[in-house]
Amino acid sequence: MTTSDFATWSDQALTRVEQALTDWVPVDAPAGLGEAMRYAVLDGGKRVRPLLVLAAADAVEGHPDAALRAACAVELIHAYSLVHDDMPCMDNDVLRRGKPTVHVQFGEAQALLAGDALQALAFELLTPEPSEVPASMQAELCRALARAAGGAGMAGGQAIDLASVGQPLTEEALRHMHMLKTGALLEGSVRMGAACAQQALSAAAHAGLVRYGAAMGLAFQVVDDILDVTADSIVLGKTAGKDAAADKPTYVSVLGLDASRALAARLGDEAQSALDDSDLANVAYLRALADRVVNRNN
Amino acid sequence: MTTSDFATWSDQALTRVEQALTDWVPVDAPAGLGEAMRYAVLDGGKRVRPLLVLAAADAVEGHPDAALRAACAVELIHAYSLVHDDMPCMDNDVLRRGKPTVHVQFGEAQALLAGDALQALAFELLTPEPSEVPASMQAELCRALARAAGGAGMAGGQAIDLASVGQPLTEEALRHMHMLKTGALLEGSVRMGAACAQQALSAAAHAGLVRYGAAMGLAFQVVDDILDVTADSIVLGKTAGKDAAADKPTYVSVLGLDASRALAARLGDEAQSALDDSDLANVAYLRALADRVVNRNN
Repeated sequence: MTTSDFATWSDQALTRVEQALTDWVPVDAPAGLGEAMRYAVLDGGKRVRPLLVLAAADAVEGHPDAALRAACAVELIHAYSLVHDDMPCMDNDVLRRGKPTVHVQFGEAQALLAGDALQALAFELLTPEPSEVPASMQAELCRALARAAGGAGMAGGQAIDLASVGQPLTEEALRHMHMLKTGALLEGSVRMGAACAQQALSAAAHAGLVRYGAAMGLAFQVVDDILDVTADSIVLGKTAGKDAAADKPTYVSVLGLDASRALAARLGDEAQSALDDSDLANVAYLRALADRVVNRNN
Repeated sequence: MTTSDFATWSDQALTRVEQALTDWVPVDAPAGLGEAMRYAVLDGGKRVRPLLVLAAADAVEGHPDAALRAACAVELIHAYSLVHDDMPCMDNDVLRRGKPTVHVQFGEAQALLAGDALQALAFELLTPEPSEVPASMQAELCRALARAAGGAGMAGGQAIDLASVGQPLTEEALRHMHMLKTGALLEGSVRMGAACAQQALSAAAHAGLVRYGAAMGLAFQVVDDILDVTADSIVLGKTAGKDAAADKPTYVSVLGLDASRALAARLGDEAQSALDDSDLANVAYLRALADRVVNRNN
């Protein structure tokens, strides 16, 4: 596969996801709620999670409609978490993806409700009826998403994050926090793509994809921490330097910049190695995504 | 069935629900999150929604484990909505079920996360693995719950509620708001109980249960509005008179007290009539629950 093959696939995948989100996030939720939901989701974000879902589904010849629904559902969970995370009682941030945050634009109460409704919508997208997506696949996708989003996943990681402000963390504690806060949903994206397989996966394929997802989940956050100190707000599309300003522990504050860069590279290698061991033939998009995540500049 | 048969069934059902919630809401979610989640859910509430799920499941000879999971899942959605609704940016309430609200006890950020994690947990409870609950039932339960909780259901109703403060509403607009805000999850409870049926329901049975659920959903809110002006905070376990103080439209403010009482009675009759038309034999618990909802004093 050439770089341009990946670029073409990625562009087409993103177009499909954008169109699906535009169709599925309701315009008509009452009293401005739909407007706030769409503002939170559309026209923004790198869509890393949907691409992971679709690339993993591609690797296992997954059910196309299920994969698109899973890609959108995981992005809705990500989007709701940003809406709530930006609120004054959490990170109190005013800029996101280069735009005012949802609570700045629509008020805190509407932001709270929009986040709540986006989480519900994620599970609604996964359970269409009538549908060609088998019920067992629908149930497995809901299971994977619920686990990734909940107290043992993203929400739990955010609770650790809250409790860690101003605390000196060991690298192990920092890793645990990030494996939950960011890693669970990224790993969940890969699991959901794998769950779209229409035939049972081999144990090697399943284990390889899970290892790939775990490595990518952590790599993404290590790079995030690096960019927080090396990039500026315009390139990032969000407030740079906010972790340091908030006295939050990061990979850079715990390990230093050089060691963080080395760790990101090692995690990228681990992701590639996991794909080698998966015995799956069609993993070129997953490989290219790993490169993109490790080498991104925003 | 005698009144004491219902009381015995109801006591046993509540004991099962309390035990299941105690088992399933995690103690070990990190950094205090589990504690906040359990505080929000355990030892409180009338558990009307779980009883509706279990009574409807009983009427259709539903799958016992699925019904218990559905009963707990719908209660988790209800509990999360209360946690978020009580926050300062929403109703800013400090007393709930006779205790300090979650954000008063644990802080706003933890309350926000606990609500989010409870919503995810609801869908996790519905998708156990390994499990004897058929995958098609798991998917249908997730579908019903997501629809009831989201922008076209509870969250949408709350958005209308927010936008209605200080507004004169017609009875029709008020009914629409309450059918979403409170009615959707109560009707959803009955739908979820029905979804636990292990054999296909007749069209009459399904239609009758849905009509019953819709009548109960509205009846519950009409009685809530009546109690808000006629009961005191100690009996209610929450702040009485808060709707009037917040200048929110209610059935009492739109129709007056006597007409509201007459409406509640009519909705109770409609619920019974829907059960008559369902052709289901075993609806005694649903009948008794309708009586309890219409005639409750807290």
